[in-house]
Amino acid sequence: MHIAVIKDSGPAERRVAATPDTVKGYVAAGHKITMTKGAGAEADFSDAAYKEAGATISASNTACVKNADLVFSVNGADAKLVGSLKKGAGITGAMSPTDNPKYAQACAKAGVTAFALDYIPRISRAQAMDVLSSQSNLSGYRAVVEAAGIYGRALPMMMTAAGTIAPAKVFVMGAGVAGLQAIATSRRLGAVTTATDVRPAAKEQVASLGAKFVAVENEEFKAAETSGGYAKEMSPEYQKAQAELTASHVAKQDVVITTALIPGRPAPKLIDKAMLDSMKPGSVIVDLAVERGGNVEGSKKGEIVTTKNGVHIVGYLNWPSRMAADASNMFARNLKAFLPLVTSEDGAYAPNWDDEIIQGCALTKEGAVVHERLLALPTAT
Amino acid sequence: MHIAVIKDSGPAERRVAATPDTVKGYVAAGHKITMTKGAGAEADFSDAAYKEAGATISASNTACVKNADLVFSVNGADAKLVGSLKKGAGITGAMSPTDNPKYAQACAKAGVTAFALDYIPRISRAQAMDVLSSQSNLSGYRAVVEAAGIYGRALPMMMTAAGTIAPAKVFVMGAGVAGLQAIATSRRLGAVTTATDVRPAAKEQVASLGAKFVAVENEEFKAAETSGGYAKEMSPEYQKAQAELTASHVAKQDVVITTALIPGRPAPKLIDKAMLDSMKPGSVIVDLAVERGGNVEGSKKGEIVTTKNGVHIVGYLNWPSRMAADASNMFARNLKAFLPLVTSEDGAYAPNWDDEIIQGCALTKEGAVVHERLLALPTAT
Repeated sequence: MHIAVIKDSGPAERRVAATPDTVKGYVAAGHKITMTKGAGAEADFSDAAYKEAGATISASNTACVKNADLVFSVNGADAKLVGSLKKGAGITGAMSPTDNPKYAQACAKAGVTAFALDYIPRISRAQAMDVLSSQSNLSGYRAVVEAAGIYGRALPMMMTAAGTIAPAKVFVMGAGVAGLQAIATSRRLGAVTTATDVRPAAKEQVASLGAKFVAVENEEFKAAETSGGYAKEMSPEYQKAQAELTASHVAKQDVVITTALIPGRPAPKLIDKAMLDSMKPGSVIVDLAVERGGNVEGSKKGEIVTTKNGVHIVGYLNWPSRMAADASNMFARNLKAFLPLVTSEDGAYAPNWDDEIIQGCALTKEGAVVHERLLALPTAT
Repeated sequence: MHIAVIKDSGPAERRVAATPDTVKGYVAAGHKITMTKGAGAEADFSDAAYKEAGATISASNTACVKNADLVFSVNGADAKLVGSLKKGAGITGAMSPTDNPKYAQACAKAGVTAFALDYIPRISRAQAMDVLSSQSNLSGYRAVVEAAGIYGRALPMMMTAAGTIAPAKVFVMGAGVAGLQAIATSRRLGAVTTATDVRPAAKEQVASLGAKFVAVENEEFKAAETSGGYAKEMSPEYQKAQAELTASHVAKQDVVITTALIPGRPAPKLIDKAMLDSMKPGSVIVDLAVERGGNVEGSKKGEIVTTKNGVHIVGYLNWPSRMAADASNMFARNLKAFLPLVTSEDGAYAPNWDDEIIQGCALTKEGAVVHERLLALPTAT
């Protein structure tokens, strides 16, 4: 089939959906690859490297996708481009479908099948395609690296002739994929690391990384683990008790990293103004949930906000793009694992509609929005 | 005595020479402390905290130093201020005396004694006062943190469902205090770490941190260790052989940190254009020696230069100020250890001119430049 790899746009986007390595594999398998000029430039993959891997370089996204059977995109930022695809073609991306329902509508209108990689069911067969995991893992690492850069002190303990520098205290709120990698990275750097989560399973994972778990461990906590591995929203009573425990803990921290998300809902507020006021000047909070409304009062998308008492709240967008090379590498491998689901035995583009993964991630089919989560939205008509 | 702590100026300076903690100790010992408003603001120490520790806040550096017996400064950036000190007073700082001989001249003219903390002899009794070590240690840590931030990939190996991310390769050139901390930090972050130095003693230290030593280990190498612990300049033949070995090694690296200095001389060039050309796009070089001319061809003071082939050369100035809180903390403790050498038994300002540490670091005395290293300079008259 003819696969087109575009230069992605969107907030702070630097990733690309194929690497010279995956392109080489596609070409060897008999696919034709066109790539937009400079598609990988911001991820340190040059056009020359893609050419050497067998891709043809197009001057623009429009030229790149023309006649393509399948378009590889990192996100669903460019709804206009969809109109340039041939009818019946497919396009991939982490499309944030419920935040961005117009994209699926544009795909339906153009007769294009939209594969939302962020909707791929979290079943074990699909793990290698899980862009949420692969990107969140890097976000968690990056959150600690950026925090270490903004924090005016060292994270590890240092014993010097002039005395000892105490290790920093790092608190990770939300122990999903991003949170666990943040914990691991914080531990690597020698910080005294604690973490919290509403799921009891996380307690064991946190402990296995050498960090201390901080939570109100009542009956509700024990019952809160859901089958999808995500946190459901906790009761007001639980949230109050947990907030009190958290508040007293946060006051003593040097770095706090928040990663709490609830699927389809705004991010829960974990840190309010009173907690911010209790923190030391120079302490750093990284709000990885800022794109979904934020876990921290006053965090701003794309900015570092410094409070009156000198607490820095980091609200950068698109954390995976802050390490674009590895993020692209992982994303490209996720797509490589996905490709067989839309490929016939003879290598042609042919989505397997009987596969639950395709059913779970396809937003559109034959000119209509078909995904139940989009059909449930008031705006999706 | 009356000690004045000024708000330091100079390139990218964010440090302060006293913390609320050291001020508290000085006040308890009976000293009077005046501080310039906002002196510690950029290091996350507030005027309120200094006041609580017992300091009086002055509106300006000029007001702060008026009538002071001893002025605490981080550097020797403000030669004009010296004229506002009372005759016979002292001033401290890492003054880079040979780079900045006019500062000592200004002190001599004002009848002020200049204590260059960077000239404190490297004897064991003076270790606690060694600002070069305390600040270099933090620079080495920070170099790796910044490199991790600029590098578009992860430093540690990561095993994920989408495949393995290989660990980054980090090469540290120059294994002094900064280099050794860079090695330790790189190892913490899981990078495959190698290092080089012209001193054989460094080989053992590098190995003890778990990094591999890279050097041409011939007779000259074995003879090169000097009593001061510094590297002497090696022969052209050795440099050529080492450069060849280094060149082939550098081509394979993801991050290179250069820390090579020769006392009183420009920094040696360790990485030339051909080596830069051999490196991968996206790789990062941190040139910690940029203030002394740089170890890397094309590095620029205060800037990140990106070469045509995509190598980022980081030439930030004043690395300790990038972690101003800890750097100030260490500097303040160095000064606290130094203070007894200029204090009489009854707590008055009285430099002990019989002490070799005072002799080693005093640039001026009774209206004249007295330090032999300055007297040897053509401009010091």
